[in-house]
Amino acid sequence: MWVGYGLYLDLLEPLRRPDQLRSDGSLTEERQRCREALELACQGLTVALVSSGDSGIYGMAGLALEQWMALAPGDRPGFTVHPGVSALQLAAARAGAPLMHDFCTISLSDRLTPWGVIERRLEAAAAGDFVVALYNPRSRGRDWQLARAQELLLAGRPASTPVVLARQLGRQEEAVSLHSLGGLPVEQVDMLTLVLVGNSSSRVEGGRMVTPRGYPGAELS
Amino acid sequence: MWVGYGLYLDLLEPLRRPDQLRSDGSLTEERQRCREALELACQGLTVALVSSGDSGIYGMAGLALEQWMALAPGDRPGFTVHPGVSALQLAAARAGAPLMHDFCTISLSDRLTPWGVIERRLEAAAAGDFVVALYNPRSRGRDWQLARAQELLLAGRPASTPVVLARQLGRQEEAVSLHSLGGLPVEQVDMLTLVLVGNSSSRVEGGRMVTPRGYPGAELS
Repeated sequence: MWVGYGLYLDLLEPLRRPDQLRSDGSLTEERQRCREALELACQGLTVALVSSGDSGIYGMAGLALEQWMALAPGDRPGFTVHPGVSALQLAAARAGAPLMHDFCTISLSDRLTPWGVIERRLEAAAAGDFVVALYNPRSRGRDWQLARAQELLLAGRPASTPVVLARQLGRQEEAVSLHSLGGLPVEQVDMLTLVLVGNSSSRVEGGRMVTPRGYPGAELS
Repeated sequence: MWVGYGLYLDLLEPLRRPDQLRSDGSLTEERQRCREALELACQGLTVALVSSGDSGIYGMAGLALEQWMALAPGDRPGFTVHPGVSALQLAAARAGAPLMHDFCTISLSDRLTPWGVIERRLEAAAAGDFVVALYNPRSRGRDWQLARAQELLLAGRPASTPVVLARQLGRQEEAVSLHSLGGLPVEQVDMLTLVLVGNSSSRVEGGRMVTPRGYPGAELS
């Protein structure tokens, strides 16, 4: 039994066997999809809850697992997470090799996280000189957070630091472009964009971005 | 043409077509493998440089790209990175769903990075309450760094914070276990282990670890 957002199930349709049923949900009703998947599994079906990217990174795995944990121990069905490729990784691959040194991911959505916590993480990312992937960077209702993130990161790395904007990754409309942190075109960023900010030693050459494995100050072999 | 560490090429052997050649390298000679792959590509061959995990995360992609960048612009062959599943992701999947909130990766190897930079990142990770994945946590020659990392992270989160130790991921000998940050069995950790430390709201239930999507202080929908 397949449970998932209809558009994702459509993409997988060629792989579906005749004995596998599908249940299409709508994009926003994540909680309900997890509940449906769990209820069917409790009835003895083998259920695949289908998610985009890596369900284990800001994905559906956690919501489903929280519901699974809320069941009485004896009622819990088997539960396995299968990793995938997250937007961070495809953005990195398209741009070159920006994740060769320590990195962090920060979601700029303050729907479930207080903005103060997000600011503290941006400050920590700047202080630690991490390569930073910004998920949920900007939407209609959240239009100032990205500029604030840019400001906080600029406190810890040069304005020339390379930044990747990766939009609609893995789809036909995919667009990947390179910018600088100081010249980031904030207005071009929307909910379908992943923003990847280099660390202080990241550089661009021949249209590709790399973060060297060696960090200044270490003896290179 | 396949270029890679012999053991990895052996694993893929069933997929190799008769017209695809292979060149086996040894584990340590990464620089030479990249050079060989590039030289063959410059001669017009289609070359796959095979790496374990995600070559884009602390992997071979960066070393190869740095060599590619060093070529004269007119001499550079096409260069595409294909993402994979990094140890971080498989460890997370095996443990449950610990990466539902902001996380960072830190390599504890000070071979190419000064230890001062690594300490600064551990402090930043503690200050930002990131879920933390520690790569290269401990080896024969580097036996004190993990205990120091534990100490720095304990400054920012409770001793009861769950920690995953994931060893030999994806192989027959795979072993995944749950511990607390305060009670981390440092001596059990080696080069084949990935250490995944929860944030202050991560919890364990039914043998699985989850980091809730909602962060304390936010209004939950």
